[in-house]
Amino acid sequence: MNIAIDMMGGDFAPAEAVKGVQLFLSEHGVSTPDHSSLPSRSSAPGLILIGDEARINPLLVQHGIDGKSVNVVHAPEVIGMNEHPTKALKEKQRSSISVGFQLLASGKTDAFISAGNTGAMLVGALYSIKPLEGVLRPTISTIIPKDNGAQGLLLDVGLNADCKPEHLNQFALLGSMYTQYISGIENPRVGLLNLGEEEGKGNLLAQAAYTLLKENKDIHFVGNIEGRDILKDKADVMVCDGFTGNIILKMAESIYEITRSKSIHHDYLDQFNFEIYGGTPVLGVSSPVIIGHGISHGKAFANMIRLAVKMIDADLMKKMKSRLEKIQ
Amino acid sequence: MNIAIDMMGGDFAPAEAVKGVQLFLSEHGVSTPDHSSLPSRSSAPGLILIGDEARINPLLVQHGIDGKSVNVVHAPEVIGMNEHPTKALKEKQRSSISVGFQLLASGKTDAFISAGNTGAMLVGALYSIKPLEGVLRPTISTIIPKDNGAQGLLLDVGLNADCKPEHLNQFALLGSMYTQYISGIENPRVGLLNLGEEEGKGNLLAQAAYTLLKENKDIHFVGNIEGRDILKDKADVMVCDGFTGNIILKMAESIYEITRSKSIHHDYLDQFNFEIYGGTPVLGVSSPVIIGHGISHGKAFANMIRLAVKMIDADLMKKMKSRLEKIQ
Repeated sequence: MNIAIDMMGGDFAPAEAVKGVQLFLSEHGVSTPDHSSLPSRSSAPGLILIGDEARINPLLVQHGIDGKSVNVVHAPEVIGMNEHPTKALKEKQRSSISVGFQLLASGKTDAFISAGNTGAMLVGALYSIKPLEGVLRPTISTIIPKDNGAQGLLLDVGLNADCKPEHLNQFALLGSMYTQYISGIENPRVGLLNLGEEEGKGNLLAQAAYTLLKENKDIHFVGNIEGRDILKDKADVMVCDGFTGNIILKMAESIYEITRSKSIHHDYLDQFNFEIYGGTPVLGVSSPVIIGHGISHGKAFANMIRLAVKMIDADLMKKMKSRLEKIQ
Repeated sequence: MNIAIDMMGGDFAPAEAVKGVQLFLSEHGVSTPDHSSLPSRSSAPGLILIGDEARINPLLVQHGIDGKSVNVVHAPEVIGMNEHPTKALKEKQRSSISVGFQLLASGKTDAFISAGNTGAMLVGALYSIKPLEGVLRPTISTIIPKDNGAQGLLLDVGLNADCKPEHLNQFALLGSMYTQYISGIENPRVGLLNLGEEEGKGNLLAQAAYTLLKENKDIHFVGNIEGRDILKDKADVMVCDGFTGNIILKMAESIYEITRSKSIHHDYLDQFNFEIYGGTPVLGVSSPVIIGHGISHGKAFANMIRLAVKMIDADLMKKMKSRLEKIQ
């Protein structure tokens, strides 16, 4: 199993990416200088570190990472956080993100992780590799912390600003499978985000989506959930269009930032530090592509590598593919 | 000036409605038993209390409200919180909400307040009285507490689940006028709720609305605001479709409920107790109609009466009417 990591993506690249690699390796029993390594729990995946060798190699030495335990692939260019995604991917073929997708498309890596330009990661995920057959629209999700300590999955959170009812219906299936195989929740409850509880409520999209979700035998639909239910444990998977989902996600993120700035501390509020969740996978594409926050620190990178391992171990993409084939 | 109050609306009716009336009257120097009355600041408006006389009158005596300082109008029926709005209004002509709209439509009161069935209040506002000429869609808004102590206005929050760009453009105008004349903010900043900052971002609605807002000379448009900006002081008026706005409002309300249940206390979080804002007016109709929360207590009722006074004093509806006439 190989996992490629964009070492140049994110606000603190490459230092925090290297820290994340160190953290992950130490858990897999690969020796690191602090000797805190645990016994190996599973065979360590091959890590492919993509980026500027001249900047990465000294950091590997500094963090005591043996050159043999990782594979550095040189990529001299970087796509900036504010560059135009399509243009940058086209013009910067030797950028870490471009190289990552080249490795993924050619099968040289099984997953690709980056905390870099989100737009470029999405464009790469949609066009360098392919959507699974039958997927109408790949989607991105976020973990939402619930008030009882549980976690829900909200999708779409911005990849699909305008949606049709059948898109929401498919998000429900992809989100359910992710929740089942990655979060380990059997028969996850699916809720449709709406402005009222009763059937028949909502905008045209939600009304039509309700009908499809209700008839969908491949998911466990529990009905509408309102804004007040988002942070409650009413559904494991919450579906909505990407416009609404993006606003909810960013509002939730701001709660953490604001309460911290006001020195309001509580374990519950700490769950709104979305960095702890690592990153979000693009669902509905043929290989794991995980997108991290720009502000990702070492812990987030380690979490993203762990998530990639989990997705590969669970063979999630293949399971999604065969489920979609069965439905059609 | 007459203000009609539905005494039977809300979860704690009529007791809390009576407390609200007492609170309001005491501020206007009308004697109440606790002798805490302040000197009259303006001539007290006539208060018309609509509801079951047999239940209201003993409470008035109990709270030391002089029968001469209010006018009780008997309404023997009540529209329940879960009744179908249109059906209930039609069948219960002698309900407090029906009677309220009859008084408003006939000019016997200048404003109508209720914490009862929201749907019935909206149907009444739209059909018993009329939208102002030129108003495409009346709208409801909410105060949003900002992290610096300021307050923003978010609209629409649920009356219009599906919107067209021109609706959002008009919400911007109505919200700006409300913010100017009622909240006292000159030249209020209008932001368009969106999933990105840059022009051109968003779903089809937001993209088209951006163009209209940018060209609208009657408002002060400051561009897109993201989910992370909702609780920040980036705009005084935030416009969106009613589906998105409703979800934001209810999510914000749940923050207060959840943090309280976890004993997380802070002045900032107290601002998410939406009851302190009293109620929300329907904007774009010909007379002030103010809708309160079902959970409204005395303070909320007093705040709603104060808001009605302010809207009448400012002659807001007439100002909106003439501004709309000028535009067309």
